Amino acid sequence: MTASALVDAVLRGDAAAQRRAIAKAITLLESTRADHRVQADELLTTLLPQTGKAFRLGISGVPGVGKSTFIEVLGLYLIAQGHRVAVLTIDPSSTVSGGSILGDKTRMEHLSVHERAYIRPSPSSGTLGGVAEKTREAMLVCEAAGYDVVIVETVGVGQSETAVANMTDMFVLMQLPNAGDDLQAIKKGVMELADLVIINKADIDADAAMRAEAQITSAMRLFGLVNNAMGGDQAANYDKLWHPRVVQLSALHNKGVDVFWDAVTQFRTIQTSNGQLAARRRHQSLSWMWERIDAGLKQAFRHDPAVSAMLPALMAQVENGQLPASTAARNLLAAQSEPTQAAIK
Amino acid sequence: MTASALVDAVLRGDAAAQRRAIAKAITLLESTRADHRVQADELLTTLLPQTGKAFRLGISGVPGVGKSTFIEVLGLYLIAQGHRVAVLTIDPSSTVSGGSILGDKTRMEHLSVHERAYIRPSPSSGTLGGVAEKTREAMLVCEAAGYDVVIVETVGVGQSETAVANMTDMFVLMQLPNAGDDLQAIKKGVMELADLVIINKADIDADAAMRAEAQITSAMRLFGLVNNAMGGDQAANYDKLWHPRVVQLSALHNKGVDVFWDAVTQFRTIQTSNGQLAARRRHQSLSWMWERIDAGLKQAFRHDPAVSAMLPALMAQVENGQLPASTAARNLLAAQSEPTQAAIK
Repeated sequence: MTASALVDAVLRGDAAAQRRAIAKAITLLESTRADHRVQADELLTTLLPQTGKAFRLGISGVPGVGKSTFIEVLGLYLIAQGHRVAVLTIDPSSTVSGGSILGDKTRMEHLSVHERAYIRPSPSSGTLGGVAEKTREAMLVCEAAGYDVVIVETVGVGQSETAVANMTDMFVLMQLPNAGDDLQAIKKGVMELADLVIINKADIDADAAMRAEAQITSAMRLFGLVNNAMGGDQAANYDKLWHPRVVQLSALHNKGVDVFWDAVTQFRTIQTSNGQLAARRRHQSLSWMWERIDAGLKQAFRHDPAVSAMLPALMAQVENGQLPASTAARNLLAAQSEPTQAAIK
Repeated sequence: MTASALVDAVLRGDAAAQRRAIAKAITLLESTRADHRVQADELLTTLLPQTGKAFRLGISGVPGVGKSTFIEVLGLYLIAQGHRVAVLTIDPSSTVSGGSILGDKTRMEHLSVHERAYIRPSPSSGTLGGVAEKTREAMLVCEAAGYDVVIVETVGVGQSETAVANMTDMFVLMQLPNAGDDLQAIKKGVMELADLVIINKADIDADAAMRAEAQITSAMRLFGLVNNAMGGDQAANYDKLWHPRVVQLSALHNKGVDVFWDAVTQFRTIQTSNGQLAARRRHQSLSWMWERIDAGLKQAFRHDPAVSAMLPALMAQVENGQLPASTAARNLLAAQSEPTQAAIK
């Protein structure tokens, strides 16, 4: 299939042909072969004008919090309302071990076979930055194909949550009604990222769920005050801003999903009218560009033959206290080529 | 003064000559002139074998927590015990505005004039990474000159706390007996960095101080459990490890400084005998090397003429959704020279 035929099938294919074309396009994006990458860049650039119309929802939570059950229920609810739903996954464990915390698509047995849903598991290797980049590009393919809600899911370990928050319009953190968990989330600075917190399995212990809601709400208010104190002009527009909130639900018993989606809809309305949604996307695009540049610079440096040759001896000298770290850094930078040297001071 | 005369004066000068030589050496290290940098690298490499014998103590806390009062009292206490004390400062506000949250050395009126103390304010400009690098190098000069306790102080805003934790043997966080503050510290992930937390001004409200101690202790235990769960072999050596703790004191009334220093001495003994102190220093040196390399790579890239010429147009296209962020990144990397290109995929 030529690139333009692939684009055509992604944009206008019948259900089965489109599904095959999406899978093929994403596989092309995930390839590390240089010629594939050239085609993938062309493909993306061609599709780009057709992207951006979906709502991008990030969902995170520790293993066992009930993400799959919730996404299955939410996805079917949205399909019943006429939406088309894509679910993408970033599994940070795959970048380390090739193993998978998040499992495969069989976790969502009804959603995964629905013709109005598209589920794609995490790229199975690469750095977290690389995996996140592939997922971000896969999101654009799904948007071009007409999926109007894209859910990006990850687990609450490592830096993957920041990556998901940085590619979505709204970042949702799922919690259990359990104080230890809350503190763990605060600790990792993840709570700060959250536009909304779900307390799942709230029916198991209603008292604990209420306590957790109160605790998380007060923590988020405090963060909000801190953030507002930093940007004074936000305080003046208090009513026009979204204020992070907590929703209790039970995904297993299909309770509270409508309340959740009402909150998401309010978020989208507020963020669209105050311009924050568009601003966030512009900011995200630029951040991604710089992140990929920095990753590329590091990779190039570490693969430079002159650098590789010097590195072991210099690292040993730095570790043993024979050479200052800053001097070693300057020597290694100088060993690379012209443009790096020019900026050394 | 030649470089070798400067080294000689730092290592063996009489009190007044040594003090002038330290100041001169640090000024040389802070210079951005390329020829000064060459001399500074030589100086550091020559001094390096004489460094590493001091205990490196990092202290952080929000403005108003009483850092200056505490460091003055602690410094005089240590001098009375026969130590020589250097105090260095990283002021993150100086990297943004040239303004100063931390003020000047007159804050410690007795310590600053003591012949067995050396106080150096923050470098007054540069990126945080650059300022931190200069401070780290100044620390080595003070160590070579025989100061056996080096205190590096910063305020609890921004990323400067991580920088200080990454250049010291022990990182101490100062708190007020106030729950809001605690949560603020947890939020920023700073509590995780702390080897010890001081609750200062504990005499003002003894009940609040006890509550804060209980709250912080339980938070730090939880972090400890989380960290131990990640590294199983640490749990086996529980007794040989330092466990972060809380000390209440009143710097203004000179109460509790001896308890604090006893805890520091225990920390140093434990960390020396279990090898953690040496391992931390090796790790810090390598981290600093890579951090300076990454900063150098970024700087070189952003100053590259071809990159600078393309950048505004590409950034606009990325912001407007005309070009994928990843494609823009690859194009810009390709615009730089050979070694960067080689690693592009």
